[in-house]
Amino acid sequence: MEKVFFEIVNAVEEAKKQGPLVGSWTNFVTIEFVANVQLATGGRAAMCFLPDETGPLAAISGATYINMGTLQPIAAESLPLAAKAAVELNKPWVLDPVAAGLGDTRNSIIKELKKYPPAIIRGNASEIISLANLWGLVSAKGNVEGVDSTDSVEAAASAAAELAEFTKGTVAVSGEADLIINSEKAYRITGGSEMLKSITGAGCSLGGLMAVYAAVTDPFTAALAASLAFKYASESAQKNTAGTASFRTAFIDNLSLPDTEALVEYAKKHLKETNL
Amino acid sequence: MEKVFFEIVNAVEEAKKQGPLVGSWTNFVTIEFVANVQLATGGRAAMCFLPDETGPLAAISGATYINMGTLQPIAAESLPLAAKAAVELNKPWVLDPVAAGLGDTRNSIIKELKKYPPAIIRGNASEIISLANLWGLVSAKGNVEGVDSTDSVEAAASAAAELAEFTKGTVAVSGEADLIINSEKAYRITGGSEMLKSITGAGCSLGGLMAVYAAVTDPFTAALAASLAFKYASESAQKNTAGTASFRTAFIDNLSLPDTEALVEYAKKHLKETNL
Amino acid sequence: MEKVFFEIVNAVEEAKKQGPLVGSWTNFVTIEFVANVQLATGGRAAMCFLPDETGPLAAISGATYINMGTLQPIAAESLPLAAKAAVELNKPWVLDPVAAGLGDTRNSIIKELKKYPPAIIRGNASEIISLANLWGLVSAKGNVEGVDSTDSVEAAASAAAELAEFTKGTVAVSGEADLIINSEKAYRITGGSEMLKSITGAGCSLGGLMAVYAAVTDPFTAALAASLAFKYASESAQKNTAGTASFRTAFIDNLSLPDTEALVEYAKKHLKETNL
Repeated sequence: MEKVFFEIVNAVEEAKKQGPLVGSWTNFVTIEFVANVQLATGGRAAMCFLPDETGPLAAISGATYINMGTLQPIAAESLPLAAKAAVELNKPWVLDPVAAGLGDTRNSIIKELKKYPPAIIRGNASEIISLANLWGLVSAKGNVEGVDSTDSVEAAASAAAELAEFTKGTVAVSGEADLIINSEKAYRITGGSEMLKSITGAGCSLGGLMAVYAAVTDPFTAALAASLAFKYASESAQKNTAGTASFRTAFIDNLSLPDTEALVEYAKKHLKETNL
Repeated sequence: MEKVFFEIVNAVEEAKKQGPLVGSWTNFVTIEFVANVQLATGGRAAMCFLPDETGPLAAISGATYINMGTLQPIAAESLPLAAKAAVELNKPWVLDPVAAGLGDTRNSIIKELKKYPPAIIRGNASEIISLANLWGLVSAKGNVEGVDSTDSVEAAASAAAELAEFTKGTVAVSGEADLIINSEKAYRITGGSEMLKSITGAGCSLGGLMAVYAAVTDPFTAALAASLAFKYASESAQKNTAGTASFRTAFIDNLSLPDTEALVEYAKKHLKETNL
Repeated sequence: MEKVFFEIVNAVEEAKKQGPLVGSWTNFVTIEFVANVQLATGGRAAMCFLPDETGPLAAISGATYINMGTLQPIAAESLPLAAKAAVELNKPWVLDPVAAGLGDTRNSIIKELKKYPPAIIRGNASEIISLANLWGLVSAKGNVEGVDSTDSVEAAASAAAELAEFTKGTVAVSGEADLIINSEKAYRITGGSEMLKSITGAGCSLGGLMAVYAAVTDPFTAALAASLAFKYASESAQKNTAGTASFRTAFIDNLSLPDTEALVEYAKKHLKETNL
């Protein structure tokens, strides 16, 4: 078995075995979905919002997930403290720059987070471009429309590369084919179900799962494993369901019952190293 | 086919085709349910809470949904900005005056929103009466008990008419039979499942769906289409499910797979024009 | 039938019959789940967060549920007002001291709530120990890890007894076997499904259900009935489901369709009075 497949399977299995605690600040729309995906895949989920708690939670967590959707005013205080604690303790944290560019408060918090480079950045193409712009790494602005991307993954490739270079970390651009990149290598993952767009929280829970895996393996493998698991679980779910709520149930069920052999077969077809 | 049926079917189909973005401020209890109903029916959902974001989100949205449940202090700033942006840009917004009358903070925000008349008001009977009272249009107070109505749809009919007159918009009173009214016409929609009372968010997601349809058709048709779709999807769901969680899943599934022919047949039985 | 079984069945049936309103302040992760469990079991659910609403909501509710997860700054004002209103009106309230001990803000709110003794305290072992410590009743500190307990129910027994003594109320420690105790008696409830750990909100919704039953019976019976219903519904759900999301659906379905005869049979096997 190719080394990358082995590492992915290992991440999926170790999460189930170790049950890592992952602390999250995440948006109110999909917070339960994120927690349920983290729990389904073996992680333990805890969320908090108070400025005197995000740091302590990051300190006891194996990894931290920060999702910028539905920000509250207190985020300006709480989020940098979580990121700071993670970085100072050498623990990975995952940034999901939801709706980057939408407003000044959001943008100034995002800029502040630049001081504490995340191990993984995950977003749609527009968010990745916007983040790279806000951090002064590119001059293009992403066309964020609410939480939706109007840019293609391809269009975000150079912004992703700049972010990976700056953070010395991994950047995952979600789309029809996901792009996972760090300063040394890049993979594309095809497949997955279109129905993920018909339920809320697919992106958020993908980021949340990356944090679970980042607690048990290196960030690049964590991002690969989570993206692949999502593509596979969603494609399988779509085969057996028609309505969007049944699809959502089947999707989480699939994540909770990983068939690692089937996952490797799926990876052989859908995971490809790529040049940038 | 009667014109109203044609318009309803058109709304349901156009939402699926156009995928309109709907920005929402909505309560934390049912925020995911609202988003999932909006996505299931073709809309794209985005939620935000910061004062410097509700206006910009309204500006890029086809319609805006404001639900007053579980208010936070920041609502006093953020909500009027969303409503103002929508009105100034001539975009429809939907007001769901959850728990109108419960407390002074809530009531003063509701009064402030009077400056920016919504295209659609949707509530239960008690909320509609309370809203009309808070806006100085009637003297009766609704008997809001938490989020539940203790008044009948009938009792709210004149308050609904006053509100429709004042806003030059549509008012939808939800209950055993929904009442949809503007200054020119009124319809009643019967049917639907009692089980909607056993899951949280039926009213909220109905308001959220009206916003999706309001982005692709006129407000009156949007309210009719959403109410009818809810009655039909819930009645169908109840036929095949016994437990409340399975019902919830089947309900969203039905909304995501609209059978417009069956919807028209259902409308012929359950949708009636009425005099007031 | 033993008296305790009769009282439990009575609570389950009265909740369905009376439909008591329960006001809750609860965390954002599981707020919808809590509401759906309350509705599935016959209660009516309402949540609010503003300081001028928590008291009024408690006043119109049959019982109040306060869950300390994902606190916001406003909690310092709002939570004592809810508890105060409930106590002054002689209405039961249920405290779920999630993550007690995590941070100073949280801990100072918890200390403030000591002034208004709850009718029921429900938590995992670590939370119960931490709460007893924060209230100056024991000197041990619970090992709260995010929201998870690293202490055994056994280790929390004396802290639970001290809390029951202080509040003149009921304390429920959740774990492999639940411990329900007041100053006069104690029961253990075995059984239930391990899969409850793989979905978020099992503890929160258990607390929320205790509040529903506390509105129709005495606090001790309410805690027993809710714990037993959870053990039974989860064990039944696990028999027919493999994935975590299907389990969640079946679990709520089971709660919504109580088979009281089967519940009594289950109680005979799993509910035992115990000495402390």
